[in-house]
Amino acid sequence: MYSFKNDYSEGAHPAILKALMETNLEQHEGYGEDKYSQLAREIIKGKVNNPHAQVHFVCGGTQANLIVISASLKPHQSVISAETGHINIHETGAIEATGHKINTVKGENGKLTVDKIKEVVELHVDEHMVKPKMVYISNTTEIGTLYKKRELEDIYSYCKTNDLYLFLDGARLGSALCSKENDLTLEDLGRLTDVFYIGGTKNGALIGEGIVINNRKLQEDFRFYMKQRGALLAKGRILGIQFLELFKDDLYFKLAEHANIMAEKLKEGIEKKGYGFLTPPVSNQIFPILPNEVIERLAKKYHFYLWSKVDDKTSAIRLVTSWATKEEGVTAFLQDL
Amino acid sequence: MYSFKNDYSEGAHPAILKALMETNLEQHEGYGEDKYSQLAREIIKGKVNNPHAQVHFVCGGTQANLIVISASLKPHQSVISAETGHINIHETGAIEATGHKINTVKGENGKLTVDKIKEVVELHVDEHMVKPKMVYISNTTEIGTLYKKRELEDIYSYCKTNDLYLFLDGARLGSALCSKENDLTLEDLGRLTDVFYIGGTKNGALIGEGIVINNRKLQEDFRFYMKQRGALLAKGRILGIQFLELFKDDLYFKLAEHANIMAEKLKEGIEKKGYGFLTPPVSNQIFPILPNEVIERLAKKYHFYLWSKVDDKTSAIRLVTSWATKEEGVTAFLQDL
Amino acid sequence: MYSFKNDYSEGAHPAILKALMETNLEQHEGYGEDKYSQLAREIIKGKVNNPHAQVHFVCGGTQANLIVISASLKPHQSVISAETGHINIHETGAIEATGHKINTVKGENGKLTVDKIKEVVELHVDEHMVKPKMVYISNTTEIGTLYKKRELEDIYSYCKTNDLYLFLDGARLGSALCSKENDLTLEDLGRLTDVFYIGGTKNGALIGEGIVINNRKLQEDFRFYMKQRGALLAKGRILGIQFLELFKDDLYFKLAEHANIMAEKLKEGIEKKGYGFLTPPVSNQIFPILPNEVIERLAKKYHFYLWSKVDDKTSAIRLVTSWATKEEGVTAFLQDL
Amino acid sequence: MYSFKNDYSEGAHPAILKALMETNLEQHEGYGEDKYSQLAREIIKGKVNNPHAQVHFVCGGTQANLIVISASLKPHQSVISAETGHINIHETGAIEATGHKINTVKGENGKLTVDKIKEVVELHVDEHMVKPKMVYISNTTEIGTLYKKRELEDIYSYCKTNDLYLFLDGARLGSALCSKENDLTLEDLGRLTDVFYIGGTKNGALIGEGIVINNRKLQEDFRFYMKQRGALLAKGRILGIQFLELFKDDLYFKLAEHANIMAEKLKEGIEKKGYGFLTPPVSNQIFPILPNEVIERLAKKYHFYLWSKVDDKTSAIRLVTSWATKEEGVTAFLQDL
Repeated sequence: MYSFKNDYSEGAHPAILKALMETNLEQHEGYGEDKYSQLAREIIKGKVNNPHAQVHFVCGGTQANLIVISASLKPHQSVISAETGHINIHETGAIEATGHKINTVKGENGKLTVDKIKEVVELHVDEHMVKPKMVYISNTTEIGTLYKKRELEDIYSYCKTNDLYLFLDGARLGSALCSKENDLTLEDLGRLTDVFYIGGTKNGALIGEGIVINNRKLQEDFRFYMKQRGALLAKGRILGIQFLELFKDDLYFKLAEHANIMAEKLKEGIEKKGYGFLTPPVSNQIFPILPNEVIERLAKKYHFYLWSKVDDKTSAIRLVTSWATKEEGVTAFLQDL
Repeated sequence: MYSFKNDYSEGAHPAILKALMETNLEQHEGYGEDKYSQLAREIIKGKVNNPHAQVHFVCGGTQANLIVISASLKPHQSVISAETGHINIHETGAIEATGHKINTVKGENGKLTVDKIKEVVELHVDEHMVKPKMVYISNTTEIGTLYKKRELEDIYSYCKTNDLYLFLDGARLGSALCSKENDLTLEDLGRLTDVFYIGGTKNGALIGEGIVINNRKLQEDFRFYMKQRGALLAKGRILGIQFLELFKDDLYFKLAEHANIMAEKLKEGIEKKGYGFLTPPVSNQIFPILPNEVIERLAKKYHFYLWSKVDDKTSAIRLVTSWATKEEGVTAFLQDL
Repeated sequence: MYSFKNDYSEGAHPAILKALMETNLEQHEGYGEDKYSQLAREIIKGKVNNPHAQVHFVCGGTQANLIVISASLKPHQSVISAETGHINIHETGAIEATGHKINTVKGENGKLTVDKIKEVVELHVDEHMVKPKMVYISNTTEIGTLYKKRELEDIYSYCKTNDLYLFLDGARLGSALCSKENDLTLEDLGRLTDVFYIGGTKNGALIGEGIVINNRKLQEDFRFYMKQRGALLAKGRILGIQFLELFKDDLYFKLAEHANIMAEKLKEGIEKKGYGFLTPPVSNQIFPILPNEVIERLAKKYHFYLWSKVDDKTSAIRLVTSWATKEEGVTAFLQDL
Repeated sequence: MYSFKNDYSEGAHPAILKALMETNLEQHEGYGEDKYSQLAREIIKGKVNNPHAQVHFVCGGTQANLIVISASLKPHQSVISAETGHINIHETGAIEATGHKINTVKGENGKLTVDKIKEVVELHVDEHMVKPKMVYISNTTEIGTLYKKRELEDIYSYCKTNDLYLFLDGARLGSALCSKENDLTLEDLGRLTDVFYIGGTKNGALIGEGIVINNRKLQEDFRFYMKQRGALLAKGRILGIQFLELFKDDLYFKLAEHANIMAEKLKEGIEKKGYGFLTPPVSNQIFPILPNEVIERLAKKYHFYLWSKVDDKTSAIRLVTSWATKEEGVTAFLQDL
C-alpha cells in the first residue's frame, strides 16, 4: 500500500534529523531561547522583510491557530472564516474553547472574498452581537486552492479600512508559494497580513509551525499566551533547529516544489485519462472526480481520503503529495488508474 | 560554562534519535494511530499493570496538566494543589484559563497530606464555593522531594472515600522511581492514582509526556480534549517511537538512575564541605545552601538557578542533573566549590 | 408614539408588583431558598407534571441559555441550532464564551427538523470535530413561528435515539402555548424536552425566566452553575414571588392570550388591506410585508423594527404585542395603515 | 425569629417600589437605554465628579465582579485579592471561569496593603507566570472593616506606578461611606479607583449594582461584555429607576446610615456586656465574640451566622444590619444577650 492520504505520513527530511543529531548533546537554554531558535527567527524575519516582526515556533496547526486567535481577540470579538476553514470544522471547537465565535461564510473554492467578509461585518452592528475583529484565511486552502496577490491585497486593504486583523494559516504555505499559479512571496505576507504562520509539519519538519507576527499590537506578551496554552516547549531548540535547517538555504521551498511537482504529475495523468477535478488542482492537494468502481479498485493499493459524493456514479477523492512522495508511487498510481 | 540549570538542556538520548531516524521514511497513520504509538501504549499498560488503562502522548507538562484537569472537571469543580505545585505558579494560569480554580494549601516539603486536603474539602460546603474534585500532586515534587508508598496510599484512600480524583504529575517521575528513598513502582501508580503522567522531556526524550488514565470515567472522549487543546500531533509517531524506545528495555529507568547518581554525587560532595540543603536531597533536583560569595564564584563557571535567600549571608541554589549530565561536570563543580 | 417594538417595553403586570409590595418587608432566606420561590417551584412542577423536575429562576434569556448549555455540555460537545437561533446571533457569543461551538443549520421558518439535525450529527464522526450533544430550539421561534406536537415528538425521539439533549428556549413560551395553532401543553414539555425555560420577562414579569430541568442527569449541582455565572440573586425571592403570581391562577396564560389576540387583530387588519407576511403570523410577533412608503409613514407614529428588505419596493417589519398592548393602539395602527 | 443574618432579607425600600409602580405602564426602550437609566447614570457621574466616567447597572455582585474583571484583563493577566476577598471564596470560581487567576495574599483585617500587593507583583517576573494587572479590594471588606483615604491613596498610587488597575467592590459601599470611621467620598472613588461599583442590593434596592468605570481604557465596548455574560436586562429600566430613586435625594446614604446606627447600637450593647469583637466593629457587619452557650441561646430567637471558633468556649458570630433593621429587633437582641 502506498499512501497519498496526507503530507505527514513520513517523518522529517533527513537534513533536519541530521541537524538535530549534530546539535543533540550541546547544552542550551530552554523554552526557545537557544541560539538556534534565535538564528532561525532572524532568518525568517529577513525572508519576510519585516525587521519588526516577531517569530515564534509552536508544535502544530491547531495550536498555532488557537493561540494566535485567542491572543488577538477580546472576549466579545469574533473571527471570520470560510465554512471550509480548518478552524471551523477540523479543530474540535478549539477556537470556541478559548471563548470566541467563528463567523462563517460560504467561501468561493474555499476562499474568502471582500464581499463575503463585508456581509458579516455589516450584519454586526451592536452589542447584542459579537464584534468581528479578525479574518482567517488559509493558503493553500483546505481544498487545495490558493490566493493570488490581488485577492490578498484586496482583503488586507478591506481589513485595514475596517479595523480587522488578517490572519493567514499557512499550514500548507510551502505548497502555495511554490505553485505555478502563485504570485505571492514571503515578503508579501510580511506586508499583507497582521499575522501568519509557516507550516513546518506538512513540509518536511518533524513538528513545528513558525508564527510570524507583523502587527506590533499583536506582539505584546505573546510568549505568555504560548505558555498558558502549553505551547512553550522545554526543549524549544528542536523547533528552532528545524526551522533553521528549512530556511537557511531555502530547503523549505525545494521540498514544497517537489510535492507540487508530484501533484502536477498526478494531475496530468488523471486529466489524460479524461477525468476532471472538484477544485482547480494547483497545489499538493488535488481532488479528482472518479467513477466509484475505479476508486474502489485504487483503494486496494493506495491510501487516500474519499472526499465527497459527486453523483450516483462518481465521487471526488483527495490525493496529497509531500516532500517525501516517491515518483514511483505516482507512476504506479497512474498506471493503476 | 557547564549547566546544572535543568534537565532539558540537551536533546534526546541517542537511542531515541536513532529510532526516529530508522523509522523516518516509513509511511504511517497520523495523530498517534501509528503502530509504534500503539505498541508503546501497550507496553506502558503492561508496566502499569492495568489492562484497562488508556495511554496518550502529548508534548509537554503544562499541556498534559491542562488537558487532564480540564477534561476531568465540570465547570464548578476545582483542583487542590500545594502552593508550590507547578500548576499553581509556573504555568501562566493555564488551569484557570480552562475555567477552573486551584485550591492551594501550604505543602510539607512540597507535598500534600491528607490533613491538608481535608481542610480544603471541609471548607467547601455549598454552591457559593467551588467543589473540590481533584487532587494534584507531583512526584518528585517541584522542590525535589518524593512521596512514599504509605503517603500515596493514604492520599488515594482519602480521595476514594471523598469522591475526589487523584492526579499525579510525573514530569520527573523517573527520578522519583529511581530514588534511593523510593518504594513506589509504576504498578503502584496504576492502582493508586486515577490518572498520572510519565515525563519524557526531562528524562531523555526530545519531547513527550505519557498520560496514563486508570479511571475509566476519565477516559471517555479523551482524544477530543487533546485535539481541542492543540495536542494531537499530525506526526504523532514521533511521540510513540520515543516512548517505545524508553520503555521497551527500561531505558527510562537507566537514564533516571544516572541522573540520580550524578545528583547523589553532588550531594555527597556538598555535604562533605559542610553545607546543608533547603529540602531533603533525594532526587535529581537538589537545593544546597551556600554562602553568597561561593555562589557568586560558582556562577562564573556553572549555570544554575538562584533559588531563595536563606539569610543575609547564605542562599539556596538549585542544581539539576539529567540522563546527560557528565561525571566530569560534577567532579569539576565539586572541586570548584 | 406607540410602540410595537417588543414585548418588554412596559414594566410588570400590576398583580405582580402588588405581590412584591405586599411581601416586601417580610424577612426571608436569600438566594432563592425563600418560601415563595419554593412554592412557585412546586406549582410549576405540578403544571409540568414532572415531580422529579428541578425548577430554577434566573434573570434573563441569555443568562438562562448560557447556564443551561454550559452546565449540560463537556468542553468538546456542541449545541445544534437554527441559524436564526437567539443563541447564534443575538447573544454576543455568550455560548462560545463558555467554550462551546454552536453548529448551525438553515431552519425552516426558524424551526429545526429531524433531517437538519441528522445532517449535523452524521457529519461529526471523530475527534477532529466537536461532538454535537444538545439540540436548541425556541418556541415560539425568533421569527414568530411555532412547533406542533408532532414536530416536537419527532425531534425529541430523534434526540433520545442519538444521545442528544433537547433544550427548548421558551422566552416566548406563553405566546406559543396560547396560539390558535398550538397543540402543546406544559405537560408535553415536561416529557418531550430534557430542559426548557418559561419566559417571564416577555410575558408580564419584571424580570425572570423559570428553568425546568426534566432530565435528572442535568440537575446535579445546577445551583453551582447559577452562582458561578452570577445568576444566584441575593434577593431571589423577587423571582419566586413573580412566578408564583404568574402560575398560581394561570395569569401567565391570560397575559399571553391577550398578547396573541392583539397580534391576531393586527394580522387580520393587515390582511384585510391586502398585505402578506414574511412568516406565518401565529404568535405575538408578526412580520407584515409593506410598501416602503407605508412603512415610512407608520414609523412617524409607531415604534417597530424594520426587519428585512423583501424587494425594491417592499420590506418586512416586525410588530410585537404583549400582555400590556392596548387595543386602542392596535386600532389606531390599523387605521393609520 | 428576627434575622441579623444579612442585609438582603427584606425587599426594597418602599420609595423604590413606589417609583417602579408609578412608571410601570410607561413604554420605554429596553436594555438600559430608557430615560430613567440615563438620568440615574448622569446623577451618579455627578456624585462621582467624573464627567468621563461610564455607569452601568447589573443585577448582582458576582455578576459585577466577573464582568468587570474579565472585561479588563487579557487572558494571561491576573487579579490580586485578599484571601478573604469575595471573588476568592464566595463566588464559586466565577473569576476563574472567565479564565483568570486570582493571586491571593493574607490581608490585614480583610484589607490589602501596598506591601502585600508588592510581594505578588515582584514575584511574577516572566512568561512562566501570570501577569498581575488588577488589584481587587472591597469596601467595606468581607469582614466589616474599611479603607481610610490614606490607605486607598497609597494603593492607588502604587497601582498607577506599576501599571495595575484598581477595582473596588462596593457591595457594601453605603455602609463604608457612612461609617463613623470613614473619610472617603464618592468623589474620592472617582479619582482613586479605575473602576468600582455601588452596591444596591444590600442597601435598599430590589436588585442592582451600579458599576462606575473611571478609566477610559476599561470603558470600550463594556455593554458587549454585559450582554455576553447575560447581564443586559431587557427591562433594564428597573435598575435605572431604582438607582435614580437611591441617588436623586441621597436616599442611598440615609439607608446606609440607618444600618450603621443599628449596628453601632448592637456594638455598644455588646461591649457594655463586656464582650469583644473579632474585627473592629465599624460598619453594618459586626463580629462579636460570645460564649458558646450564649450563642446557642440567642440562636433560638435570632438568625445570624456562626462565623468562626475562637477558642474552646467562645466563638465569633456575624450580625448584619440593614436599611430595614428595626430598632425593636436590636433592643430585643440586646436584652436577650
